[in-house]
Amino acid sequence: MNSTASPVSATGLPWAMQCTAFDAPQADTLRVQSEVLVVVSGQGRIEAVIARDDPRWETERARHAAAGQLRALPAGSYLLPGLVDVHVHAPQWPQMGKALDVPLEDWLQQNTFPLEARYGDAAFAESVYRPLVQQLLANGTTTAMYFGTLHEVGNRVLAEQCLRQGQRALVGRVAMDEPGQCPAFYRDASARQAVAETEAFIDAVAQLPGNSGGLVLPVITPRFIPSCTDELLAGLGALAQRTGAHVQTHCSESDWAHQHVLERTGTTDAHALHRFGLLTRRTVVAHANFLTHADVALMAEVGASVAHCPLSNFYFANSVFPARSGHAQQMGMGMGSDISGGYSPSMFDACRHAITASYALDEGVDPDLPSAQRGRHNARIDHVFALWLATAAGGKALDLPIGRIEAGQHFDAIVVDCHAPDSNVCIWPDSDSPADVLQKIIYNATRANVSQTWVQGALVHCRGTA
Amino acid sequence: MNSTASPVSATGLPWAMQCTAFDAPQADTLRVQSEVLVVVSGQGRIEAVIARDDPRWETERARHAAAGQLRALPAGSYLLPGLVDVHVHAPQWPQMGKALDVPLEDWLQQNTFPLEARYGDAAFAESVYRPLVQQLLANGTTTAMYFGTLHEVGNRVLAEQCLRQGQRALVGRVAMDEPGQCPAFYRDASARQAVAETEAFIDAVAQLPGNSGGLVLPVITPRFIPSCTDELLAGLGALAQRTGAHVQTHCSESDWAHQHVLERTGTTDAHALHRFGLLTRRTVVAHANFLTHADVALMAEVGASVAHCPLSNFYFANSVFPARSGHAQQMGMGMGSDISGGYSPSMFDACRHAITASYALDEGVDPDLPSAQRGRHNARIDHVFALWLATAAGGKALDLPIGRIEAGQHFDAIVVDCHAPDSNVCIWPDSDSPADVLQKIIYNATRANVSQTWVQGALVHCRGTA
Repeated sequence: MNSTASPVSATGLPWAMQCTAFDAPQADTLRVQSEVLVVVSGQGRIEAVIARDDPRWETERARHAAAGQLRALPAGSYLLPGLVDVHVHAPQWPQMGKALDVPLEDWLQQNTFPLEARYGDAAFAESVYRPLVQQLLANGTTTAMYFGTLHEVGNRVLAEQCLRQGQRALVGRVAMDEPGQCPAFYRDASARQAVAETEAFIDAVAQLPGNSGGLVLPVITPRFIPSCTDELLAGLGALAQRTGAHVQTHCSESDWAHQHVLERTGTTDAHALHRFGLLTRRTVVAHANFLTHADVALMAEVGASVAHCPLSNFYFANSVFPARSGHAQQMGMGMGSDISGGYSPSMFDACRHAITASYALDEGVDPDLPSAQRGRHNARIDHVFALWLATAAGGKALDLPIGRIEAGQHFDAIVVDCHAPDSNVCIWPDSDSPADVLQKIIYNATRANVSQTWVQGALVHCRGTA
Repeated sequence: MNSTASPVSATGLPWAMQCTAFDAPQADTLRVQSEVLVVVSGQGRIEAVIARDDPRWETERARHAAAGQLRALPAGSYLLPGLVDVHVHAPQWPQMGKALDVPLEDWLQQNTFPLEARYGDAAFAESVYRPLVQQLLANGTTTAMYFGTLHEVGNRVLAEQCLRQGQRALVGRVAMDEPGQCPAFYRDASARQAVAETEAFIDAVAQLPGNSGGLVLPVITPRFIPSCTDELLAGLGALAQRTGAHVQTHCSESDWAHQHVLERTGTTDAHALHRFGLLTRRTVVAHANFLTHADVALMAEVGASVAHCPLSNFYFANSVFPARSGHAQQMGMGMGSDISGGYSPSMFDACRHAITASYALDEGVDPDLPSAQRGRHNARIDHVFALWLATAAGGKALDLPIGRIEAGQHFDAIVVDCHAPDSNVCIWPDSDSPADVLQKIIYNATRANVSQTWVQGALVHCRGTA
């Protein structure tokens, strides 16, 4: 986006977009709104979605056109909800797509922690976080829930970049103080200090210039139970209860983590987090592959959600997260890229990996096993479920009015151009229904197809002008 | 490519490219040739790759520069071998990324067969095959092994499009005559006719105008054992033995197919194909997930290869192909997109799915199983193995001198531009080694990064001019 663009509507006037919109308001429901008029308030909320056969369509269209406040999408372009990425490690951006062939211990100790330790330097932080936010917007990610680092300065730079570039964001000050798990060069000096700095960050985010509308929110962020002392977890839990702020952490990701927490706390991650006060309606736990049936029930009861990170799970979680069964038990969930445990910044890639992972879980993988012993049936999800995960489900997980194209929601949206120069989305108008078009978008859209990215009614990325 | 471009060197003069080249000559060997001079003959062969510290580097560079025959890649651009896709269903291009949520039987009978039946119409065939070849070249696929249809006219159009646009290709006339498996509207009238038409197609391809260099080769193509009578399989096998032409088919893809062939023939697909004369040094069998240990040994002995199609396997093969163990047993293999059983035309996507699939096989997928019962260890491959699969391994499978950047090979290559406008390949020059750059390319390159595609020394696609 060029520097003159504003993250809020320059005029403050209502405007309208004439378009065909796709969204997935429920897990298995594709909604096609053909040639509707999406009316957006000067504050960036969707005021109405007027159907083509509604008598108001003509009058509202004419009124906005006369006022110079009408945008019409060209043929081959479609409106989708903005993509919601509920698990991103912002400081890991420079190593995205790298060091994925080394053991986890080396990945953490040799690569990840030394990199994360650098964000006390504001200039370095800005050199990473500016392109990070730019490129996620270019990929259509309108909302990101970020793990930052332990550094006040780096986290502030990240929050400022989101505000400046107009990305809706939740930014977490990472807390980790367990000497047995965290390196000396990158850990909190004490639980007390980590809690105090987290509380200060919550206040600082609210007071950032330009954040009166709450575009950027703070997140209480214990890295995961193994890297935090009980004192730290209890302190952060009390803070969550007192402030109502969002919470994020990792949970039951791998065999090792699951077992480690069982041995240390005598219970599962989810139940331990609950005991510490860290499981709330605004909690998002990443991965959660090894949740027990009772864990899922607890999560559903509390209203906490899982960040499903299908790509990084293949690499680091020893298994596939059973999204279909978790949903059947009413547990909330959203989708995470898990940069850089996941190598791709594209939530379209995350959609595709979520489908693939669910098929692997459903069918099993080892051809040497008899078919009956191979899979775990009824585990599949399809492209509509994946779209829901990456949009409306994420909005619900974050307790924000985003992810659907309907009145009352923020106008956080993307325009997907199937005719873009480098498009692999190949539409055959004679044989593709609107539902087919959407399926082809989910399966083949890339950053090259994202021609516009909108957050709260403001155009924050336009392809070719970044 | 604009219409004035020629698929062979316009001048017939040797020329040189100054570049950093990546390739994977062996399964686990990454070769980085930094700032080398790749000297290409007028016939499109690599004559020499001259290292930067070789005394000839300066003189050869100066000589080519003086003759106006030097190209130097800019910073951030790298030379890779052209991508080799050994399994593409050309007629399924219009349904790529569609109907993947329906049962296999519907996918075949309601979608795929009716679509394939349309290619007796030359105009329709051209309307599909022209963009198909264009878009595969734009994605960096310099060689494709295609399943066509039963139609002489459609297959000829496909071969002509490959010649016209300069893609190296192997084109197969599909044969299928088993009434119990093939619909009445789309099957061969008799085994005899199918064999005769296959033979005629082999002759016709050799005689196509512009094909004296053999850029396009014919392939004997029984669809798979279930859709062919014994008479047809025997006839095609005899043809393969007599002509030495390439052979392609599907083999032991799914539980159903594997079991069906066992029951019908009393043996496995691989052994049955061998008995019919269809397993040769130039045979590529797609999928092959359910090969037995003895099948793999037979394949290795004969020199036949597998088209590993990791993406479509998730959807249709009930399991993951164990690439690592097949390679350990010396069996040849290449990589296939399997359009449209696979939804992506990008061989970079295929690389990523091959890695993901191997991790799923290695770790297992079901978190409800104990760790020890979940996976099948030593199954992982990494990004170097994946690059090898998509390049040098494919060249070896096809018995063609392609897939490596070294003297004696055809100059079939792509230029990957990490600085392309829509690039998700994010390089940090201070911290990324050349090997890191290659890893980031394999994990995040898309069509948008493929700035040039070269086949046999001719520039056949240039980004932004398609």
